[in-house]
Amino acid sequence: MSLVYKADPERGEEWRALFRQLAPQMPFYIWPQTGPVEDVRYLVVWQPPDRLAERFPHLDVLFSVGAGVDQLAGADIPAHLPVVRMTEPGIAQDMAEYVTLAVLALHRDWPQYLAQQRQAVWREVRNVPAARRRVGVLGLGRLARQALRQLQPFGFPLAGWSRSGGEIEGVEVFAGDAQLPEFLARTDILVCLLPLTDQTQGVLDRRLFSQLPQGAALVNVGRGGHLVNADLLAALDEGRLRAAVLDVCDPEPLPPDHPFWHDARILLTPHVASMTRPETAVTTVLEVIAQHRAGLPLAGAIDRSKGY
Amino acid sequence: MSLVYKADPERGEEWRALFRQLAPQMPFYIWPQTGPVEDVRYLVVWQPPDRLAERFPHLDVLFSVGAGVDQLAGADIPAHLPVVRMTEPGIAQDMAEYVTLAVLALHRDWPQYLAQQRQAVWREVRNVPAARRRVGVLGLGRLARQALRQLQPFGFPLAGWSRSGGEIEGVEVFAGDAQLPEFLARTDILVCLLPLTDQTQGVLDRRLFSQLPQGAALVNVGRGGHLVNADLLAALDEGRLRAAVLDVCDPEPLPPDHPFWHDARILLTPHVASMTRPETAVTTVLEVIAQHRAGLPLAGAIDRSKGY
Repeated sequence: MSLVYKADPERGEEWRALFRQLAPQMPFYIWPQTGPVEDVRYLVVWQPPDRLAERFPHLDVLFSVGAGVDQLAGADIPAHLPVVRMTEPGIAQDMAEYVTLAVLALHRDWPQYLAQQRQAVWREVRNVPAARRRVGVLGLGRLARQALRQLQPFGFPLAGWSRSGGEIEGVEVFAGDAQLPEFLARTDILVCLLPLTDQTQGVLDRRLFSQLPQGAALVNVGRGGHLVNADLLAALDEGRLRAAVLDVCDPEPLPPDHPFWHDARILLTPHVASMTRPETAVTTVLEVIAQHRAGLPLAGAIDRSKGY
Repeated sequence: MSLVYKADPERGEEWRALFRQLAPQMPFYIWPQTGPVEDVRYLVVWQPPDRLAERFPHLDVLFSVGAGVDQLAGADIPAHLPVVRMTEPGIAQDMAEYVTLAVLALHRDWPQYLAQQRQAVWREVRNVPAARRRVGVLGLGRLARQALRQLQPFGFPLAGWSRSGGEIEGVEVFAGDAQLPEFLARTDILVCLLPLTDQTQGVLDRRLFSQLPQGAALVNVGRGGHLVNADLLAALDEGRLRAAVLDVCDPEPLPPDHPFWHDARILLTPHVASMTRPETAVTTVLEVIAQHRAGLPLAGAIDRSKGY
């Protein structure tokens, strides 16, 4: 039985070296190499190949190389095939770091200061104490919870919203559509960490922005598809939003003539908030393979009916 | 007995309102108003007036409105007059926030990403785990210690250096000239939080930069006078340093034609890392006045022989 890796080939070489070291008995291939297709039991992908079931008739587990699985939507994945998202701990650490950086940058007015720097303007904006800057996170999955934990020592009033809610110490939790308006009305810096599904596509739109306090700010580290690009620009023009940090866009890469590139109110990074680290990712994949062989539940297996 | 405030007049009005509320019996003046000069016992200043002792013959305490007192150097301050630096807690909180923001921005390559944004370039840089990014703080005063505490949960290997050293849990402490080279050699992101004195003027120079690892980064939140501007540009050109975040400059404001404004490797803010908050500052000043009247040691009194 063998494993095929189909994602960034440079990192694939690191995966290969790690497999050689940690699982020397497991044949490892980087797409488009596959070895004998009937031997392939495990497939690690960003984008799956077309005709998946035909190509690999004996596949046991499909792994996403990232924390999200929305890029698998529309792929022809047999209903019985377990799909496992990447849960290696480096992803959550990277994300918590990035969310803290983005929240602090907005809290401390860096979009304005960086714009002033380009104009050689030396002008201060009064600092707002963290205790008066309310941060709210949309989504309360594993990454969101770690980000909230990382934000806690700064003293921001923290809240979180998800469909089903839950309890998190030190965080005011809102649940479901009914409590969304109240969550938004108390949020000065909104962080989107939702999974991308049919229900959350385009959730960051004019209607949602209009429920935030005037002069709020946005961090999108979910997916580009969560955001209605034109509505963000309108909200910035109207002053409803004062600034945004975007790590994800639709489309990616952003075309060279897109207005986000040159908008001083937007700080943009190229989908780097979290990166799967080969060292810990390979260990995580090997653990799931061992679980599968032992007939145990697979850590990180998604609920195919919910899509995450 | 009365108090004269001589600093930013807009915030002075907030001080006035707070004094009216918290110490209604104390006459409060905003410079250039002073009331009868023989009644003035307390003076709160950024820059002291000239002929200080002559103007205010009965002064009991001179307060700096900021955490530093280097701006008092050269002023004609009688040797017996107690000088008290601002120790209100908002300053340390602001500073810890800013240092964390600046360190995370350098750790996550924001200078490069922001430069790429201006050129509409979508290109990722590999994330480095925090465990492999060594942060070092020059100076181990109250602000530095709070900044180190704030950085701790991110997992950076932390070190600090000061003349006299000390013990800080979770931080490798280096002391004195003898241990400075070792401290610099292990520091990927260097934060300057030294007081500005004759000894520390120009400490961030070519010789110091040459002892950092290739591609290190700098945060200066001390004073502009710590940094030799030309040596920073040379170190960036040579690749010894890859980027810098500067909140302080020499001179301030930075002149419009200064090369720092338009250098993509430098992120610049206009001396806003910490701001004295009138609410807590007035309480702190009133506490020190009470200490003085009771003949107790004054919290925040500086050692005039050391200059901080």
